Amino acid sequence: MITRQSAVWPVIRYAAGRLELEQPDQVAAEEPLEIRVEGHSVAVVMRTPGHDRELAAGFLLTENLVRSTRDIFEITQCGADEGQVVKVTLRNPAAFDASKLTRNVFSSSSCGVCSKATIEAVRQSFAPITSTCSVRAETLLRLPAALREKQETFNQTGGLHACALFDLAGTLQEVREDVGRHNALDKLIGHALLEDLLPLHDQVLLLSGRVSFEMMQKALAAGIPIVAAISAPTTLAVEFARENNQTLIGFLRGETMNIYSGAERVQRTHLR
Amino acid sequence: MITRQSAVWPVIRYAAGRLELEQPDQVAAEEPLEIRVEGHSVAVVMRTPGHDRELAAGFLLTENLVRSTRDIFEITQCGADEGQVVKVTLRNPAAFDASKLTRNVFSSSSCGVCSKATIEAVRQSFAPITSTCSVRAETLLRLPAALREKQETFNQTGGLHACALFDLAGTLQEVREDVGRHNALDKLIGHALLEDLLPLHDQVLLLSGRVSFEMMQKALAAGIPIVAAISAPTTLAVEFARENNQTLIGFLRGETMNIYSGAERVQRTHLR
Repeated sequence: MITRQSAVWPVIRYAAGRLELEQPDQVAAEEPLEIRVEGHSVAVVMRTPGHDRELAAGFLLTENLVRSTRDIFEITQCGADEGQVVKVTLRNPAAFDASKLTRNVFSSSSCGVCSKATIEAVRQSFAPITSTCSVRAETLLRLPAALREKQETFNQTGGLHACALFDLAGTLQEVREDVGRHNALDKLIGHALLEDLLPLHDQVLLLSGRVSFEMMQKALAAGIPIVAAISAPTTLAVEFARENNQTLIGFLRGETMNIYSGAERVQRTHLR
Repeated sequence: MITRQSAVWPVIRYAAGRLELEQPDQVAAEEPLEIRVEGHSVAVVMRTPGHDRELAAGFLLTENLVRSTRDIFEITQCGADEGQVVKVTLRNPAAFDASKLTRNVFSSSSCGVCSKATIEAVRQSFAPITSTCSVRAETLLRLPAALREKQETFNQTGGLHACALFDLAGTLQEVREDVGRHNALDKLIGHALLEDLLPLHDQVLLLSGRVSFEMMQKALAAGIPIVAAISAPTTLAVEFARENNQTLIGFLRGETMNIYSGAERVQRTHLR
């Protein structure tokens, strides 16, 4: 079943030592939503479509901009931009104070991108991958166990995201952990930057969790050709990987994986 | 072992029908870090302490503000503010353009909070919980299965966060799913706001994943007294819960749970 919350995409599945071509796989949808209050763009959030008016209302409440439904005059979703904009008007517009937004979500209403498609607001410009390196499927299958061995804080707390760089032979190079997925990856890439190792054209990035658009964009910034994750990617992550010639692997678990993009970098291992 | 990346806290463990008082439990650390570039505050990120210079470097690379280590003159961590500020100076300061930051992280350098402690930048002001409601431990143990039954998109994609509201008898009220944890919770709370159900003084919030400071703050905004999660909380989530009289339960799995705050709202069930 196809809903707005997911999409069915062809994916190459690797199982029992073989590649099974073009199996359909259901992928969780991820798309940007811009929230405007009294004409001011207050946030662009990467979300799964659906319940968008509720998302805007909850955002306003938890950012302390409204206290009850009586503070809201109207919430409408624009037909243009494919429904990617929610406009909120308040009962008392004079009470709106953008400076009350926490720093993490505050974005200037004067930054000039409000009239562009919202995806542009979260996209940076990095060159597509040109590396023609490849890695054996069996090597990829060994990576999660190698990461788990090194995940010191996770083993103690059960509460951290981890990411790691491996060479093409499957040897672990560096690992970083953080409560935030983005932070763990920024730390790993920042290490490579400070050590002057960029671009990472012959490295494999392993992620302990899910793969969003922003994770793929960070990997691209570092020139990483192959991204493998233990959990699921989103639709936008897959689209981004295909556009930028990145290899994207999800559900890397046990003896199986799904290859969503760039399968030519995964060497099939011949069975005995 | 205590590291900067985690802390050992007393926690009440519930197992085999009993509460075991004050067991030590290791909790993943979460603290704010402010990143300043050429004197401009460009972001406050909630992160696990450690590798902070790398975090700043990776952030700058993935936000396209630098391309190589040669673009960076110096990265220093301030001793004041307990090391919660990283200052970056660039080889060519004139090239720094804050408008290149994606909208999600851009924050105005003129918003006036730069000189405050950074945690203030992500904290809103909501009243502490006053609800004296309670829920049976056995009821809490049944919630994860009830959520899983309703997690439609997750069951199809394996890729979404979910959160749900339950009444004190354990009956599921609403569930929302999203690629972003914050979005799922904003949608759930937004629904309650639009239906004029706030404050949710007699509801239990169940989270499919981990509990950060920001998730607890959102729950507080809606007046929710009891937050239970299938995975781990962070240090700052626990501190926030204790400050605001919220009940916080983590690792709600099988027949066990950890109670980090507000245990008086969890009714111990007498064994036969």
